[in-house]
Amino acid sequence: MKDDPRRRDPAAYPWQLELAPRYGDMDANGHLNNVAIAQLFEETRVQFNWQSAQLFAGSRPRFLAAHVAIDYLAEGRYPGAVTMALAVNHIGNSSFRMAKAAFQGGTCIALCDSVLVFRSPEGGPATIPPALRERLEAHRLRG
Amino acid sequence: MKDDPRRRDPAAYPWQLELAPRYGDMDANGHLNNVAIAQLFEETRVQFNWQSAQLFAGSRPRFLAAHVAIDYLAEGRYPGAVTMALAVNHIGNSSFRMAKAAFQGGTCIALCDSVLVFRSPEGGPATIPPALRERLEAHRLRG
Amino acid sequence: MKDDPRRRDPAAYPWQLELAPRYGDMDANGHLNNVAIAQLFEETRVQFNWQSAQLFAGSRPRFLAAHVAIDYLAEGRYPGAVTMALAVNHIGNSSFRMAKAAFQGGTCIALCDSVLVFRSPEGGPATIPPALRERLEAHRLRG
Amino acid sequence: MKDDPRRRDPAAYPWQLELAPRYGDMDANGHLNNVAIAQLFEETRVQFNWQSAQLFAGSRPRFLAAHVAIDYLAEGRYPGAVTMALAVNHIGNSSFRMAKAAFQGGTCIALCDSVLVFRSPEGGPATIPPALRERLEAHRLRG
Repeated sequence: MKDDPRRRDPAAYPWQLELAPRYGDMDANGHLNNVAIAQLFEETRVQFNWQSAQLFAGSRPRFLAAHVAIDYLAEGRYPGAVTMALAVNHIGNSSFRMAKAAFQGGTCIALCDSVLVFRSPEGGPATIPPALRERLEAHRLRG
Repeated sequence: MKDDPRRRDPAAYPWQLELAPRYGDMDANGHLNNVAIAQLFEETRVQFNWQSAQLFAGSRPRFLAAHVAIDYLAEGRYPGAVTMALAVNHIGNSSFRMAKAAFQGGTCIALCDSVLVFRSPEGGPATIPPALRERLEAHRLRG
Repeated sequence: MKDDPRRRDPAAYPWQLELAPRYGDMDANGHLNNVAIAQLFEETRVQFNWQSAQLFAGSRPRFLAAHVAIDYLAEGRYPGAVTMALAVNHIGNSSFRMAKAAFQGGTCIALCDSVLVFRSPEGGPATIPPALRERLEAHRLRG
Repeated sequence: MKDDPRRRDPAAYPWQLELAPRYGDMDANGHLNNVAIAQLFEETRVQFNWQSAQLFAGSRPRFLAAHVAIDYLAEGRYPGAVTMALAVNHIGNSSFRMAKAAFQGGTCIALCDSVLVFRSPEGGPATIPPALRERLEAHRLRG
C-alpha cells in the first residue's frame, strides 16, 4: 500500500474523522505506540460500519475484521489530533476491503488495509445487500 | 491504606497471583503507567471473583466494582513479574471490600482498596449467600 | 466524594473537556470498562497539568499522581461523548488534590479524587511556585 | 499467510512464549479484541527482540516495526493461556521479517507477519551485524 502515492493523499479518501490520541497511547519511546495506532484504525472502521448498520432497520449486522495490515510510516505524537481517512477499494460478495490512512500535522503517519466480512445477525457470512453495496460504492478510493 | 504497615507485607494477603506486565503497559516515562497498574488490579479482582462464581452452579453472579482507590508508591518497570496480593477486609450485606497490593522485586509498588457489590443474575444488589461469605471470611487480611 | 451533591453538578467544576470513548473501551458487558474510565480521568488530569506546565518556561515540571480514587456511579456507553469536569479542592505545599467527574448524556457516571505531587525537573517533590498556585486557586471547586 | 499450512502448525516455529489474556482484552462481543491480539503479537516481538538486544553489550539497538499484518482466524477467549509462536522468514540487509502465530486450546486464532528494521543507537537503519544475523538464522520457520 505504501507504494501507491494516492494512499498518502488525504483527498483520495471520501470519509474522514478526527480522533484525539490519549496520553496512554504513548509508549516508552514517547511516541504513539503501534498498537495504539491500530486502535485508532479500529475506531475509524467501527464508526464507518456503525453508520452502515443504520441502513438495516430492526436487525443489527456485524462486520468482522478478518485481516488488518498496517504500514507505520512516521512517528505519531501526543498531543495532536489525528485525521483518519477511509475509503473502500474492493467489494466482493460477502466481504469488502478498506483503505485507511492516518494523518497528523500534514504527515501521513500510517496506512491500513483491512478486509471486512459482512455477517448476518445469526453470525455467518452473508451477501452484501444492495443498500450497503451502494454505500460502499459511494466511498471508493479516488484518483 | 498506605499508613497501615500490614498492607505492604505480602504475608498479610492470603490470595496471590503473578501477572506479567506488557511492553504496552509502559508510558512515556518508561515506567508502568498508572492506568496499566489499575488494569493489573482489575485482573486480580476478576480472577478472584471468577473463582468465587464457581460456587454458584447454574447461575452466574456478577460482581460490580463500585469504588476503586489506588496509592501509587513506587515506579513499576517492564519487564518483570508483578506479584498481586489480595485480601478481604470488610464484608457487608451485599457488598465487600478488598485490600490489594502489587509487589515487584520485593518492593510494594501500589496498594488498592475496592468495594465490590454482589449482584444477582438479574442485576440488582443481592445478599451475599453463605457459601460466598465463607469464602470471603477465609481470605481476611492477616496480622 | 459521592455523598457531596456538588460533586455531581457540572457547574461546580471550572475546567471541562470533552472526550470520545472508543469501541475498545467497552468490556464484555458492553459498557465502558472501569479501567477505560480511569484512562479518561488520566487524560483529563494530564491535559490540565500540561496547560499548567506552560507556566514554566524552559523547564518542564512533572506532576506525579500519588493517589487516585474513583466512584463508579452508572454505566458508561459507547458511542457518546463524555464531558470530563475538573476542579482543585486542596492545595498543599508540594501537592494538591483534584476533584473530577465524568458526565454522559446528563448523567454523572463517575467521580474521581486524585492527589498530585509537584516535582522539580530533577525528580523530587518541590514547593508549588506562585504562578502554579494562582492557577490552581482559580480552579477551586465551586458552590 | 493463512494459505500456508505450515503457518498453523506450532511445530514450525522455533521460539514460543505463553501469554495470559486479561479481562480487559475482551471487547463487547465477549471475545478477545482484535487490537488486544495485536498487543499480544507486539509483546511477543518485543520479548524476542530484547533477547536479541543482549547480544550488543553497552549499546542498545532498537528494532522498529515498519509493517504488521494480522489474519484473524478464530475468536479468542478469556480466560485461557495463549501460546505465541515466532519464526524468522526473511533476512535482508537492515530488516527482517517475522512470522508469528497465536494458538489457544489447540486452535490457531491468528497469524501475524511483521517487518522489523534494525536501527543503530543513533536512530537510522543499520546493517544487521553477524551475531544478530546468526540468531535470526537459527530461528527460521521450519518444514
